[in-house]
Amino acid sequence: MAMKRWSFFLDDRSIILASVRLVNYAPFKGAARTTRSPKASERRRARRNIMSGTADRPTVGVVGLGIMGLSYARNLREAGFPVIGFDVAQAPLDALRAAGGEVASSPRAVAEKADVVLIALASVDALKSACGGDEGLIHAIRPDAVVCEMGTFPLYAKEYVQKLFETKGIPVLDCPVSGTGAQAAVRDLVVYASGDKDAADRIRPVFDGFARNTRYVGAFGAGIKLKFVANLLVTIHNLAAAEAMVLAEQSGLDLNMVYDAISDGAGTSRMFEVRGKMMVDEHYLPPQMKVEVYMKDIQLITEFATAVRAPTPLMAASVPYYVAALASGHEAEDTAAIHAVLKEMTQPKG
Amino acid sequence: MAMKRWSFFLDDRSIILASVRLVNYAPFKGAARTTRSPKASERRRARRNIMSGTADRPTVGVVGLGIMGLSYARNLREAGFPVIGFDVAQAPLDALRAAGGEVASSPRAVAEKADVVLIALASVDALKSACGGDEGLIHAIRPDAVVCEMGTFPLYAKEYVQKLFETKGIPVLDCPVSGTGAQAAVRDLVVYASGDKDAADRIRPVFDGFARNTRYVGAFGAGIKLKFVANLLVTIHNLAAAEAMVLAEQSGLDLNMVYDAISDGAGTSRMFEVRGKMMVDEHYLPPQMKVEVYMKDIQLITEFATAVRAPTPLMAASVPYYVAALASGHEAEDTAAIHAVLKEMTQPKG
Repeated sequence: MAMKRWSFFLDDRSIILASVRLVNYAPFKGAARTTRSPKASERRRARRNIMSGTADRPTVGVVGLGIMGLSYARNLREAGFPVIGFDVAQAPLDALRAAGGEVASSPRAVAEKADVVLIALASVDALKSACGGDEGLIHAIRPDAVVCEMGTFPLYAKEYVQKLFETKGIPVLDCPVSGTGAQAAVRDLVVYASGDKDAADRIRPVFDGFARNTRYVGAFGAGIKLKFVANLLVTIHNLAAAEAMVLAEQSGLDLNMVYDAISDGAGTSRMFEVRGKMMVDEHYLPPQMKVEVYMKDIQLITEFATAVRAPTPLMAASVPYYVAALASGHEAEDTAAIHAVLKEMTQPKG
Repeated sequence: MAMKRWSFFLDDRSIILASVRLVNYAPFKGAARTTRSPKASERRRARRNIMSGTADRPTVGVVGLGIMGLSYARNLREAGFPVIGFDVAQAPLDALRAAGGEVASSPRAVAEKADVVLIALASVDALKSACGGDEGLIHAIRPDAVVCEMGTFPLYAKEYVQKLFETKGIPVLDCPVSGTGAQAAVRDLVVYASGDKDAADRIRPVFDGFARNTRYVGAFGAGIKLKFVANLLVTIHNLAAAEAMVLAEQSGLDLNMVYDAISDGAGTSRMFEVRGKMMVDEHYLPPQMKVEVYMKDIQLITEFATAVRAPTPLMAASVPYYVAALASGHEAEDTAAIHAVLKEMTQPKG
């Protein structure tokens, strides 16, 4: 039932904003040059051996060394995993090398050595190039490998990756993470693992190398769906916290008292606790999540809700205020800056 | 500044819905028959003695023995306080007597014996009659008494009570409570005490007799303002939880998994944790807070936000769904039934 509803959502679009860093490979050419799939017996033998690589730990490939990917790589190195990584930028490659990781010249070069591949890219175009482009993972993926797509992307993009690697019999897991860049740095992430349960169980030690917890949440795609549900709440609760703070200030209450009292009562949310203090201080830096980056999530959730036919009145009512935050100079601040938008609405003009 | 904004909010209206139990005294006659105020020296002497009444505990009067008032009375009895109470209905009086409390024939009769008066009524009309009506508290209030207005009412109604008792030099505290009827029964409430700080400190043992915690939150009225801020969040978060659950169901996710995962992550709220499970089970009984009763809070918050000039887009967007819950047969269910409203919007008709 739910699957049928997805049908029109599976077309190919990029809704990524201009602000998101793009990886510019050669144009996407699909899963060309796919060679024969390994035999099932080969795959079974390879699987048994996966955890017996260097130092009893599989080699982890990380494609995309942004804030999240680099944190995965660093924490995995610290946990003793061999790591090989790739990014189009030089700085994160230097950082990876400094952390004891190996630097690769392409996703293909990552695939040649990696037992587990973590993909942590910022756009659908980058994802497609890294997987199926001329120098993509697909051309050198090991027969015993497991691929984890970690991003927040539309399901159709995740399914593209799944189908691409299916041609070689490689399991792909949809594994978005819950947590900010700051949380990633201190290994305070939760992985929403979905897809082949055996594969997810097998590579659990890898997840444990960079996340506080891993939840297996169901069939392929359940991870990203759950993330959309969670971020719908994050989107609404952040604006709700701003409303509460503006209401409190307009009624003359002490905002620090309000923060303490609300955090301890029936009105609280994790967002209120995390971002409420930034609102009290009217200081939205450093960003845990920039407004301009979060717009991608907002658009994904909105499209997703429409695709599955879920009426989401508060999500819809939230969007204009995030757009206003973009419009009014808060685009590089934390999403807590939505508070400034509401507050500015109460200021006399002229 | 904020005070000036209140001016037009201070007119006399009753926005209480027909469903709320009303106390029908003789028509309100203002603070008539006010006699001389006690001298300051008398009041000071009386105050020193307040905590040395029967069994070292002051006698507590409870006016209004609904779900909340009766819980206060029972818990205070259990904590060893002499309690005298009044209600227009017979059943709660019997319950009070069974709990070892004394039954009074009018608010006036309560005032004759009470050192501390807790007012826990359900409508502004009832509040006015109980305080200033022919058999109201004002006619017999003791010179050393402290009056606590515990309800969720517009500030103007609270200020009416304050001004009425000011004529006799009696401090009135604005002390709404945070917590449901179920929480009240097990002493799991937080009192938001505002007004005269000395008086609040002095009667703290009384609050401790029926609440888990008391927060002194500021000048008179800060309590009800804080409660409006908290309930704005409760109103929004409850609908947000419903949106999340409907989105999850429409996308084919396992709802118990969603409840567990979201409760543990960045998307959670106290409301999601409290009401999310009722939504998973689609079972909105027994009510912790009935939709029809909560409409009073929704209207109060909406009026308050307009009065203090606070733009509250998500609060405004929430109202139609609560009204729909009223309209579609969920009025006596818990406010979690707003989930049914959204869910019904996804069902094919015909």
